[in-house]
Amino acid sequence: MIIRLKQGCDKNEALHLAAPFYGILVQDGGEDVLVISGKIQELPSILEPFAEEVIPTEGDFQLSARRYRNEKRAIKLSSGLTIGGTTTNCVLMIGPCSVEEEEQIEAVAQFCVAQGIRVLRAGAFKPRTAPYSFQGLGLEGLKLLARMREKYGLLIITEARDATHIEAVIEHSDIVQVGAKAMYDHGILKACGKARKPVLIKRGFGSTLQELVQASEFVLSAGNEQVMLCERGIRTFETKTRFTLDLCGVAWLKEHCNLPIILDPSHAMGYAYGVPDLARACLAMGVDGLLVEVHPFPAKALSDSSQQLNFEQFARLKSSLIPLAQAIGITLI
Amino acid sequence: MIIRLKQGCDKNEALHLAAPFYGILVQDGGEDVLVISGKIQELPSILEPFAEEVIPTEGDFQLSARRYRNEKRAIKLSSGLTIGGTTTNCVLMIGPCSVEEEEQIEAVAQFCVAQGIRVLRAGAFKPRTAPYSFQGLGLEGLKLLARMREKYGLLIITEARDATHIEAVIEHSDIVQVGAKAMYDHGILKACGKARKPVLIKRGFGSTLQELVQASEFVLSAGNEQVMLCERGIRTFETKTRFTLDLCGVAWLKEHCNLPIILDPSHAMGYAYGVPDLARACLAMGVDGLLVEVHPFPAKALSDSSQQLNFEQFARLKSSLIPLAQAIGITLI
Amino acid sequence: MIIRLKQGCDKNEALHLAAPFYGILVQDGGEDVLVISGKIQELPSILEPFAEEVIPTEGDFQLSARRYRNEKRAIKLSSGLTIGGTTTNCVLMIGPCSVEEEEQIEAVAQFCVAQGIRVLRAGAFKPRTAPYSFQGLGLEGLKLLARMREKYGLLIITEARDATHIEAVIEHSDIVQVGAKAMYDHGILKACGKARKPVLIKRGFGSTLQELVQASEFVLSAGNEQVMLCERGIRTFETKTRFTLDLCGVAWLKEHCNLPIILDPSHAMGYAYGVPDLARACLAMGVDGLLVEVHPFPAKALSDSSQQLNFEQFARLKSSLIPLAQAIGITLI
Amino acid sequence: MIIRLKQGCDKNEALHLAAPFYGILVQDGGEDVLVISGKIQELPSILEPFAEEVIPTEGDFQLSARRYRNEKRAIKLSSGLTIGGTTTNCVLMIGPCSVEEEEQIEAVAQFCVAQGIRVLRAGAFKPRTAPYSFQGLGLEGLKLLARMREKYGLLIITEARDATHIEAVIEHSDIVQVGAKAMYDHGILKACGKARKPVLIKRGFGSTLQELVQASEFVLSAGNEQVMLCERGIRTFETKTRFTLDLCGVAWLKEHCNLPIILDPSHAMGYAYGVPDLARACLAMGVDGLLVEVHPFPAKALSDSSQQLNFEQFARLKSSLIPLAQAIGITLI
Repeated sequence: MIIRLKQGCDKNEALHLAAPFYGILVQDGGEDVLVISGKIQELPSILEPFAEEVIPTEGDFQLSARRYRNEKRAIKLSSGLTIGGTTTNCVLMIGPCSVEEEEQIEAVAQFCVAQGIRVLRAGAFKPRTAPYSFQGLGLEGLKLLARMREKYGLLIITEARDATHIEAVIEHSDIVQVGAKAMYDHGILKACGKARKPVLIKRGFGSTLQELVQASEFVLSAGNEQVMLCERGIRTFETKTRFTLDLCGVAWLKEHCNLPIILDPSHAMGYAYGVPDLARACLAMGVDGLLVEVHPFPAKALSDSSQQLNFEQFARLKSSLIPLAQAIGITLI
Repeated sequence: MIIRLKQGCDKNEALHLAAPFYGILVQDGGEDVLVISGKIQELPSILEPFAEEVIPTEGDFQLSARRYRNEKRAIKLSSGLTIGGTTTNCVLMIGPCSVEEEEQIEAVAQFCVAQGIRVLRAGAFKPRTAPYSFQGLGLEGLKLLARMREKYGLLIITEARDATHIEAVIEHSDIVQVGAKAMYDHGILKACGKARKPVLIKRGFGSTLQELVQASEFVLSAGNEQVMLCERGIRTFETKTRFTLDLCGVAWLKEHCNLPIILDPSHAMGYAYGVPDLARACLAMGVDGLLVEVHPFPAKALSDSSQQLNFEQFARLKSSLIPLAQAIGITLI
Repeated sequence: MIIRLKQGCDKNEALHLAAPFYGILVQDGGEDVLVISGKIQELPSILEPFAEEVIPTEGDFQLSARRYRNEKRAIKLSSGLTIGGTTTNCVLMIGPCSVEEEEQIEAVAQFCVAQGIRVLRAGAFKPRTAPYSFQGLGLEGLKLLARMREKYGLLIITEARDATHIEAVIEHSDIVQVGAKAMYDHGILKACGKARKPVLIKRGFGSTLQELVQASEFVLSAGNEQVMLCERGIRTFETKTRFTLDLCGVAWLKEHCNLPIILDPSHAMGYAYGVPDLARACLAMGVDGLLVEVHPFPAKALSDSSQQLNFEQFARLKSSLIPLAQAIGITLI
Repeated sequence: MIIRLKQGCDKNEALHLAAPFYGILVQDGGEDVLVISGKIQELPSILEPFAEEVIPTEGDFQLSARRYRNEKRAIKLSSGLTIGGTTTNCVLMIGPCSVEEEEQIEAVAQFCVAQGIRVLRAGAFKPRTAPYSFQGLGLEGLKLLARMREKYGLLIITEARDATHIEAVIEHSDIVQVGAKAMYDHGILKACGKARKPVLIKRGFGSTLQELVQASEFVLSAGNEQVMLCERGIRTFETKTRFTLDLCGVAWLKEHCNLPIILDPSHAMGYAYGVPDLARACLAMGVDGLLVEVHPFPAKALSDSSQQLNFEQFARLKSSLIPLAQAIGITLI
């Protein structure tokens, strides 16, 4: 339940009284709201004197729900670029699975510039499932990404895998990506709540939509309104593809959630051949951005080799997206 | 394994010798092929004298595989309309979940005519999960559909639920729909194999892509080349939507399977609000047709009430599909 | 909603008036009840004069719910053996996946006699996923099974795959098995409703517990009270085993459903090595019976070769079940 | 691939040369082994001079595989209690979902003593899915648990949720539990690898068995051999129960993995009524331990209220486990 507080009331007193209901005081969209446990169905009488308006919510789907704020939230990037809000933007974020070495990431950065792409994606901390494989360049990778930002004016999105390096990721990125395997990580989510940077939360492949929006509540309720969600495929019984991209879930999010939605067809499919078709489908859904894995030489990639597009494949994909975007009134960036 | 037979060889002798390998003799695309168990990796020496060419297959994904025949099969409908093949057609097939009464189905038929829709869909035998609910009009429903064909020149697609009425469905329809819950039904599949009508096989919501293409093998190997596949959502852990539309699976089918692909966003989503976005996504994937549930008064529908579009909603959807189709070179029918 | 009718009331009139609510009149446990759609929450006033008692139900989980009849239903087999009811029986039903030839099935029948097993299982109609493989002996297989009954006094359980042969299966079996792939088959379920033989319904691997109990409603509401349910593994994202045996679901069934529960660890696991451990787990759950695949020479089996136990393995398993059954007060049969 | 090194060879030189294959040098079971990427199928020639024996592995399932070390690993607890190894022990670990206050946890500790239970479980850091709910007592909770150890001689198992508090959990516990939502957390896994305490890794509800055993490789390869795995239910399409306990997966683990297996029926079921039946099933599988949630007043619990047993329910369950354990030669502790 979200309680819009009366102007001039003693907010801290309200917060204090809301402790049994796990209340959190949030400044959201310029106003003070008190969010209490979604299990509470009726306004506790002790909080009545403070309440200007009460917004019932479904479970703990609260600040991120259209039921509370119907307009889509706007993410303001440092370069002046906006994702979501009242824009018709669909922002392409491309790059390799992993930063592997300077030459590789610079080739991609130059390709971004040539293609008019504004956001470079690449991982420095890789959440591999076993220790006997490439684990990412770590801090060195972050620094290479930062250098690409300086040299080419690109915005950087990169992922935190666990809480031990979240501060470094926040420092060196323009958009902090909470990885699919880290979606429940309170250490990361709390740090993102305090950060003054946009956050993209990837849905865990075993996570429900309810859990995804609730993950965003950790960030929103800690005072960071700049949150995007990313659907990147869920795990199902089907094994011919790596995951199953949940576009029904995207339709649900668009209807019920006020956060911008980014789609990642590369991880969902797991094979380059299907990525262009899926990217077109995502664009036609009217989403706010796409993450597409692009590598100079996919066959030599140290991780996710099968699903990355090479430059030529991406260029062809981009050419096909342009008329599609125009046809449905979307601004492809 | 598929064996292209030498011209003039004794086909029946080959078939006889192939019995231990579960061989089936098929006339496909005008040539004689002998299909034997997918477990056989090497041509049995006894069959060598008959073999012109040997096409290895993956498991029992054989006649429907691009590895065997790379060009997409063409479905020729009685009205001269073609689905798949070398066309760029995306054929809209719309109508209510169930035929409920003449007035209802006639209203939809007239709406189809007004919208330029050529294929009317509706169920006469409903595969409900419990007996205490509307089970469909049965044979009477089939006859109402046949009347709509005669009166309005529409093609009819309707579903068989079990083998007890498959002959009636074949008789009264232009496209025989094998329901998702009947995908493994040998009685139905065998009857479809003998039928001289196009068949659309819906993927079971718990069925793998491998099983879906294998279901088509029952029809193809019995001599009916007119088979389409339909993805209509699979069952996953996500419960906010009715099913999860598997567009990664569609990308796999397009790459590996030579049958036309039809998408059903209505059953996947389960809620009308998401159907237009999903329909646009499906169209952008470049599929061969769409099944969309449309009802004059969805709230009064006797089955699947929440997911059917009303006439106005469908008309708006269709308007949005036209520029999208044009942008990507698809002929919307 | 289940309505216990007043003695002496005009049942047919009640049935007639209940038509808008999809009412079905059932004689169950010796009393007349009228079952109407589970969506109806309040007794329709027009039916009030007929109602002795009203039992609300959850959805269409009605005659099979403990909420309606709390005692477990008893299945009376022709030999005097009872499954469920007030017995503490756990009945072993063993045999090969498929009847392959007389010698094979007779070897198993003799093994059953030697082990004191009363129920022989084997399939005559195999629901294979592709046509290029062994499809079962069909009617000939049924006849071989019937011969084993006559010669060795065994009870026969065998499966119907589709509605084209359900009458033959009913005729030749003692327990009619509705296969997992046929769980939604109305043709089969309706025939089972009219049959005067016990029916075992296998849960589809993509089917919910709600759908499983609802499938039983087709049989129960048609007047056949002799229904058992079988859990045999559901399809999940895990691929190291063939399916995932859902013992949480079994706990739910035991608590909420009044039908006897049979477990099939062989199909769930898919590998012989895990069957004994799982069989012990099932027995410890306190279920009413076990289906275990046993074959004289599993490596030579024409279907499900990897999961069948050989005679020695089964004998060892049975020896281990005896003390376990004794320890928890179960009568192993 | 695991390479047993020749005695007296230059291990560091071998490690250096194995860098391109992501080699890790491990002292395991008193011998030096070099583990390299599971993708390498043949011993690299440069490593030949160092190899005493080469053990091929499947993917990165290496140190935890029976293919490498067939005997089950033994976990030595500080009190002299052993889990796994050559024992027949099944160790009960019980307690509330969360430490809520001293009185509550002390009541449970006293109940453990009365029941002869040696391991107390309770969470201090709760991985709740939304911020507007009880998040656990944190460090204070750990200290309360430590006090119970001192006062009652109990061993403590408690969970780390993210890497920010893993050192505190390691310090205050006897067994470090890696939570299901933290199974991929490298920060936690690496800290566990350095810890000199036993570690229990819970399978993520969306995680494959392959990923579970691979998670253990992070700990094992860092030099901590004291690892147990815990199955606690996976997420499937079935919603009548909270999760689906994967006992087929347990059968797979017992066959292929050399780590002790602990089962958690409480989280799998989500409802107290099913826990005793499932606990008996787990015991009958022959597992090495059980985690059961027990709370003095489940209805008042601040988390997981529906699934916790009260004292009387647990006492009854324990009584039923004793004869079962005896019947199958298991030592219940």
